[in-house]
Amino acid sequence: MFPDRAFFNTLADAARAETLPRFRTGAFITNKLEGGFDPVTEGDRAAESAIRALIEARFPEHGILGEEHEDIGLDREHIWVIDPIDGTRAFISGVPMWGTLIGFQSGGRSVMGVMDQPFTGERYFADGERAWYSGPDGERQIATRACKTLSDAILFTTSPHIFLEDEAERYHAVERHVRLFRYGTDCYAYALLAAGHVDLVIESSLKPYDVGALIPLIEQAGGIITTWDGGRPEGGGNIVAAGTAELHAQAISILGNS
Amino acid sequence: MFPDRAFFNTLADAARAETLPRFRTGAFITNKLEGGFDPVTEGDRAAESAIRALIEARFPEHGILGEEHEDIGLDREHIWVIDPIDGTRAFISGVPMWGTLIGFQSGGRSVMGVMDQPFTGERYFADGERAWYSGPDGERQIATRACKTLSDAILFTTSPHIFLEDEAERYHAVERHVRLFRYGTDCYAYALLAAGHVDLVIESSLKPYDVGALIPLIEQAGGIITTWDGGRPEGGGNIVAAGTAELHAQAISILGNS
Repeated sequence: MFPDRAFFNTLADAARAETLPRFRTGAFITNKLEGGFDPVTEGDRAAESAIRALIEARFPEHGILGEEHEDIGLDREHIWVIDPIDGTRAFISGVPMWGTLIGFQSGGRSVMGVMDQPFTGERYFADGERAWYSGPDGERQIATRACKTLSDAILFTTSPHIFLEDEAERYHAVERHVRLFRYGTDCYAYALLAAGHVDLVIESSLKPYDVGALIPLIEQAGGIITTWDGGRPEGGGNIVAAGTAELHAQAISILGNS
Repeated sequence: MFPDRAFFNTLADAARAETLPRFRTGAFITNKLEGGFDPVTEGDRAAESAIRALIEARFPEHGILGEEHEDIGLDREHIWVIDPIDGTRAFISGVPMWGTLIGFQSGGRSVMGVMDQPFTGERYFADGERAWYSGPDGERQIATRACKTLSDAILFTTSPHIFLEDEAERYHAVERHVRLFRYGTDCYAYALLAAGHVDLVIESSLKPYDVGALIPLIEQAGGIITTWDGGRPEGGGNIVAAGTAELHAQAISILGNS
């Protein structure tokens, strides 16, 4: 049995109850890695626990892949893919561009997903066929826009520093061709792409839980999301998302040259 | 006579009525400069007109310095400094981190100011003595936080591309020392600094209307904002804002070395 929209809303609401009260408090920051800076909040862990408890109660036969806790049943037909706070650096610096990502896979494909931003009140949802937005300015079906050339495109990435050396060269080769680029967006970039505000998102070294919820959002809004060499994106890695097939082809013709 | 908080709210509300309905519509984008990309929306122009009309009716003896229309009476004792949409690139790409900036100067000093973000419903206000936040999670007095060393600091800048060559070297010398840095923030960075979420903002080539409203916000929240060489920031240029005097001193000891 597939989950319905109401259940996704229940999950996002449960996560929100753990994340939003901890946003902009300046507390609860710990480091995952000694020496490195990989912050994760108590909100991150509590939100994932809340989401998992609801899933396990309703769909005990489903698998779960999450950022914070142990994976369960990754060989099962249906798998939930969870990043309770995508954009932890945004979260700890007070920027409301982090999001709770909850994706649902069937037979290895991401088919449903929600991206929730509790502070702004925005929720982006892919129901299996169509993509939807709800926020402070209402609710509506969303679609990518018809930008077909790099020179017209708005490009987002989290930071130019996320790319390894040869990746950075290829990324910058794309960046040089676009009309406008912007840094600092995390999962929010994919939501804006699905809603037709921007045209292209390029990132690298993503985990499956970074993209699981975003894949159906992009695809069901009419866009394309793949790895840099054009493969399925469910496994993460180097990811490119575009609003049109033409723009996607131009981007991977540059990114795919290894 | 000085304006009161109610009047600032009236101005911000009038600007909001022109900007918010045009946000995320994808329309109304024009280029100021042939060849370059310097977008400005009809909302930008309409918002400044609305603000000016209210000021001229209530305080006809005051001067006005704005981004979009002709300056008036810059030799007067009281001057309003207006940027109707700071962060036009954020605005046109659907990112709710632009803001309406309205500052008030007396005798050459910025003494009051508001930064308003209509989509998130956040309003940051400096009343001449104290700094205030109001938003979806309530209203409160705000203050910068007590970070005193670069190695503990969160640093924001709009983009590493805003710096000229020798400026970029000095900026990166600071960036290498901080705990975390982030791009893509525009005026929103200063609001988060005033509210104690981040510690340091460094930018270059700012206009007076980019900082007029933000100076009192930073100062009345307990922070320091100057040019890179430690001078008054009212004229714009290369600007550094910090939450504490100690952190500010460390930043300008690097930035000020020309």
